[in-house]
Amino acid sequence: MSHLERSMSNDPLKSWSDGVTKSAILNFVSRVTAEGTRDFVPHAKRIAVFDNDGTLWPEQPTYIQFVFAFDRVKALVPEHQEWRTRQPFQAVLEGNVEALVALNEKGLREIITATHSGMTTDEFSAIVTAWLATTKDKRFKRFYTELVYQPMLELLAYLQINGFKTFIVSGAGQDFIRVFADKTYCVPPEQVVGSTTATQFQVQNLRPVLLKMPSVEPVEDGPGKPVAINRFIGQRPIFAFGNSDGDKEMLEWTGAGIGLRFMGIVHHTDADREWAYDRQSDVGRLDKVLDEANAKGWTVVDMKRDWNVVFPTEAP
Amino acid sequence: MSHLERSMSNDPLKSWSDGVTKSAILNFVSRVTAEGTRDFVPHAKRIAVFDNDGTLWPEQPTYIQFVFAFDRVKALVPEHQEWRTRQPFQAVLEGNVEALVALNEKGLREIITATHSGMTTDEFSAIVTAWLATTKDKRFKRFYTELVYQPMLELLAYLQINGFKTFIVSGAGQDFIRVFADKTYCVPPEQVVGSTTATQFQVQNLRPVLLKMPSVEPVEDGPGKPVAINRFIGQRPIFAFGNSDGDKEMLEWTGAGIGLRFMGIVHHTDADREWAYDRQSDVGRLDKVLDEANAKGWTVVDMKRDWNVVFPTEAP
Repeated sequence: MSHLERSMSNDPLKSWSDGVTKSAILNFVSRVTAEGTRDFVPHAKRIAVFDNDGTLWPEQPTYIQFVFAFDRVKALVPEHQEWRTRQPFQAVLEGNVEALVALNEKGLREIITATHSGMTTDEFSAIVTAWLATTKDKRFKRFYTELVYQPMLELLAYLQINGFKTFIVSGAGQDFIRVFADKTYCVPPEQVVGSTTATQFQVQNLRPVLLKMPSVEPVEDGPGKPVAINRFIGQRPIFAFGNSDGDKEMLEWTGAGIGLRFMGIVHHTDADREWAYDRQSDVGRLDKVLDEANAKGWTVVDMKRDWNVVFPTEAP
Repeated sequence: MSHLERSMSNDPLKSWSDGVTKSAILNFVSRVTAEGTRDFVPHAKRIAVFDNDGTLWPEQPTYIQFVFAFDRVKALVPEHQEWRTRQPFQAVLEGNVEALVALNEKGLREIITATHSGMTTDEFSAIVTAWLATTKDKRFKRFYTELVYQPMLELLAYLQINGFKTFIVSGAGQDFIRVFADKTYCVPPEQVVGSTTATQFQVQNLRPVLLKMPSVEPVEDGPGKPVAINRFIGQRPIFAFGNSDGDKEMLEWTGAGIGLRFMGIVHHTDADREWAYDRQSDVGRLDKVLDEANAKGWTVVDMKRDWNVVFPTEAP
């Protein structure tokens, strides 16, 4: 059963526990879709934006795209023997966790650039597809596309059948997310916004291709998210979901529009079923935005309390 | 009657003369929408891209956005007295056509930057809206949004009711086109791709805004169009329409996909009703692509022959 079909059963959010969080979502959607009322929003303006890492799938102990990049370094080392003695590649090859955790943005960007360029866009998609089909998360022993949050799949589907256009707005790689977003989230490529490498149009063997180049065109977390929303979407969302301080400005930008708005945050509170982290975490820190959410009445999902089920594989 | 309603009457392309061009369009759409056949394309992959200037509305004697920018220079001169004696602004203020025609890219960019930055995105939209509502084309004495091509409106609507997602991919200003594309073409903001200024997220009087900054993020004509299609859409179009050598790579990129494709070109051949220009024109030169279209069997619209009607105001 697809998540769309599941959501059309009686309870569109059946992996959500009854309570204030679920009620807030149902109430918002019911109000903005009630024709003839003050809160009604026409289809074309039902724009919903979601962060990806930590909002739709896990980001601990490190971002899944970094796991991919590290695996690519290992796969490519036969063609790059110099990496064995060169940082940051050496740390990846030796599995030096401390060195990896300490990687600064420059080091990470070097790894991302080295593993995400030098091939055509089609070749890159094929590499990601193959990796996703064969690589399991170390803790959960599942493919990453099986580790998307079941309640969020239901939420996406619920918005989609209510005429929302659902977008992903991520600081992570657009080309990476696009590979699985369509099948996994029912979010087509044109509704995935994220960082990418520059591409160059070339004709190879009489066939035009786009070659991924070693320079990054970032969508920055924080203020970069409303900037990207304006650049790629050009409409202010009425619904936004994030999980970290990197989503602050996206949530504020959404909230500053006229009319009814929904701002939601996933608070990772469940170390048993997923992970528990917030103000002190290096990955996905949720600190300022937690205070702001409480002050402004944004909806905070308490994963432990609000989600009956975390991953689709546990779905009843 | 909206152009959507009009298109749903018996002949969806009634401003198109019967002949090979019209047949080629009807034949393509009928084949890719015929379920169960080899040529069938599912809705999600029916991506159509259109150039704007010269393809959906006129670009002679100069781009409409340049007329806007020149008018803005005149409107802003009280706050910029230094422009009276400084090029390229002086040429604009003195209506020095020769100097304007001779403007190089740097000069044009200076004018665009000066007139398209320093305000919020909302303020810029309001400025463009007001200008479009009050400014008429010198030759045709009509508002610019009345000078969109009636046959192309019918084509857009025909594709839209056949499940295509129609995009505009232009080297011109995204924020400018988005102001009228929704109402005029039924193309929503998120389906308009073009150049823009960088924006900066700021909080003004407790309210977040996006401020347009004096630096350009271009979508370059030529190879930049497939690059932008990949960045913003992430799917290869099956249908593309342009009118100049600047659309060459977009048409080639579309044509290189697997399965049935449609590549179309507007050839401006009607000096009486609109304009006639091609290989020698500085604006919208159609030279290499005309040869390539003939060699590859792309569809070339002969405006004089193929269009019964050019502008909506003449529509019967």
